[in-house]
Amino acid sequence: MFKKIIENVREKTPLVHFITNYVTVTDVANALLACGGSPIMSDDENDVEDITSVCNALVINIGTLNERTIKSMIKAGKKANELNHPVVLDPVGAGASKLRTQTTTKLLKEIKFSVIKGNISEIRTVYAGYGTTKGVDADATDAVNENNLDEVIAFAKKLSGRTGAIIAITGAIDIVANSETAFVIKNGNAVMSKITGSGCMLAGVVAAYAYANIENILEATVCAISGFGLAGELAVQKQELENKKGTGTFRTYLIDEISLMDYDKFMKGMKIEKK
Amino acid sequence: MFKKIIENVREKTPLVHFITNYVTVTDVANALLACGGSPIMSDDENDVEDITSVCNALVINIGTLNERTIKSMIKAGKKANELNHPVVLDPVGAGASKLRTQTTTKLLKEIKFSVIKGNISEIRTVYAGYGTTKGVDADATDAVNENNLDEVIAFAKKLSGRTGAIIAITGAIDIVANSETAFVIKNGNAVMSKITGSGCMLAGVVAAYAYANIENILEATVCAISGFGLAGELAVQKQELENKKGTGTFRTYLIDEISLMDYDKFMKGMKIEKK
Amino acid sequence: MFKKIIENVREKTPLVHFITNYVTVTDVANALLACGGSPIMSDDENDVEDITSVCNALVINIGTLNERTIKSMIKAGKKANELNHPVVLDPVGAGASKLRTQTTTKLLKEIKFSVIKGNISEIRTVYAGYGTTKGVDADATDAVNENNLDEVIAFAKKLSGRTGAIIAITGAIDIVANSETAFVIKNGNAVMSKITGSGCMLAGVVAAYAYANIENILEATVCAISGFGLAGELAVQKQELENKKGTGTFRTYLIDEISLMDYDKFMKGMKIEKK
Repeated sequence: MFKKIIENVREKTPLVHFITNYVTVTDVANALLACGGSPIMSDDENDVEDITSVCNALVINIGTLNERTIKSMIKAGKKANELNHPVVLDPVGAGASKLRTQTTTKLLKEIKFSVIKGNISEIRTVYAGYGTTKGVDADATDAVNENNLDEVIAFAKKLSGRTGAIIAITGAIDIVANSETAFVIKNGNAVMSKITGSGCMLAGVVAAYAYANIENILEATVCAISGFGLAGELAVQKQELENKKGTGTFRTYLIDEISLMDYDKFMKGMKIEKK
Repeated sequence: MFKKIIENVREKTPLVHFITNYVTVTDVANALLACGGSPIMSDDENDVEDITSVCNALVINIGTLNERTIKSMIKAGKKANELNHPVVLDPVGAGASKLRTQTTTKLLKEIKFSVIKGNISEIRTVYAGYGTTKGVDADATDAVNENNLDEVIAFAKKLSGRTGAIIAITGAIDIVANSETAFVIKNGNAVMSKITGSGCMLAGVVAAYAYANIENILEATVCAISGFGLAGELAVQKQELENKKGTGTFRTYLIDEISLMDYDKFMKGMKIEKK
Repeated sequence: MFKKIIENVREKTPLVHFITNYVTVTDVANALLACGGSPIMSDDENDVEDITSVCNALVINIGTLNERTIKSMIKAGKKANELNHPVVLDPVGAGASKLRTQTTTKLLKEIKFSVIKGNISEIRTVYAGYGTTKGVDADATDAVNENNLDEVIAFAKKLSGRTGAIIAITGAIDIVANSETAFVIKNGNAVMSKITGSGCMLAGVVAAYAYANIENILEATVCAISGFGLAGELAVQKQELENKKGTGTFRTYLIDEISLMDYDKFMKGMKIEKK
């Protein structure tokens, strides 16, 4: 199954429309290209419907939202829904400000998402409509671990049931669930949180995987997240091999490893468990 | 001739004003610095005229245009025209949306460009006023190859005659033409389209070369494009030598090679043919 | 003293709110993470007060200011002042346009800054309320050198007395002063001006150091600037060791060295003189 999922992305070159933050946008574009997709960024109200229409999937990331782009997000999302394109939501910082929380709620009301991806604090905010996110990182007291794993899985399934979207909760342990089935992923490493943009890049990769495997978005999302985390692990291995420390080199090697990922590497390194 | 062209850029440190997209802007700034120029980004309506006035050249790139910045593009362009600064247009995604196509047409009406640089789909849109661009990459069915080369050259010359601008069509084969003379450039490689921003970076380098060689913009543009493609080739050679694969490393080495380019390397590697 | 200053940053993980330009924002985020902080970018008028409230420090950088974000800068700054968060001003391009100069003046009137950091031309503009900055780089005729050092130190002290902020003038020689004491720093190297964003990254690092050492912002700023320059030196040494030339690799290694900086390296390499 994963063989086909990975090959589909490289074969179909998914064209992904992004309305995303300006902090990590270059890396997002490069990560998408690296995994086999092709990015277009467009956030003007009068441009987004046309651009969504020539694309295959849409990512909405609220990392540097503003009044103007919120309107564009809704317009693009509705158009993508009309066209049955997969739409991925990355509610960056939901819970950290009223505007971010309210915008998340609004987007969920107006747009049908295929995948909602965030850290546990953001996803709890999606559920509750308010939150206590400390900045854009997950609240440490909230982190997913072996003790609360079953609770978080139940929560993810419930939220998936309510929204109709695949729920992807990222962190040291990743959880991907629809209303019935959940997967636990243990790829990735701590360095990924020491560079900006890991989460944003991942959202784009998920969108490409979702489009290229539209009949099977749950497993495609699992594969994208596991493979992305694995690329992080391989990047660190490469650094160790070359005795090259530091987060600048890590960031470069992460993109390298995404571009070099294939089925064999994936099968050797993936740490996926069905729950 | 090329010796003087390259040296002029390093000697004159062209100050280039950019109104450009936020996707590739860091790489654009670093590529300009690497080739010997100095970048300033400014896109507020009340800022652009002053900034253009302290600069030597202007680049307008519509990659993430919006209502606000379109106004700024026109204001900056008119001011640059007044001051006889070279102005480079990079009509990113022209043909992919009504807004991009209409903005391109509007810019061409209001501003006199020294160089218009784009892929074949974008340049065909510039010509026709409408297009069928698939996203921000050139339409494959439209690619320049040995069979249609003469037709595309004739087209470029005609468009140059109509606009008064040097026309630069980039792709596997690059064409640079004024109304009478065309050059065909075969530097560069396929990896350059696997990172974001090659085209945007090139526009900045062209602007620097155009200002530093204002009496000779045609050859300066040819030199900039050939040298930029050659930097891409040298980056790949360096990767092969070090057995370092991946697009993250390529992107880093591309900037390295732009910063290390000189006349000797250029003459050894340039693939330029006059037509 | 420096031991404690450096450790405080790593221990407290300062959360820094940035309203900053989109040219260098990725590198700014990565540099902050590398030194031990955590970044949040937010520039919407309705978002900034909440975000500032969950953060520990604020950086205002006017590099790509616009009408909308100027309002947000003022709102965020006032909120940060209310909460006694350190606020760092980076008046990029002040003196190069009326809007930048006037905005700088306005920000200084409305907000109390803990640190004002810029090149000599920008800082002279801060003082005079107008300037002759050539673009975003310092005017060469204005550069700090051994001959005018005493004059510039006196000027920095005077400006500190007037604004109540630590004044940090960066260049080949850096000067950090309050109204009574000045430090001269000779770390760093010329390559740092051949990549975009050195100054912007530094502002973020200074904010993290200021929050983590709030009782001692003068020395914290000195330590941040010296350590940042030293990271640049170590990056070049690493390039030389590996015989890897070019500004792309330098940029990557700069982030590496920021992330690897510790007290021992700092003490071995710092070039700080009290005046």
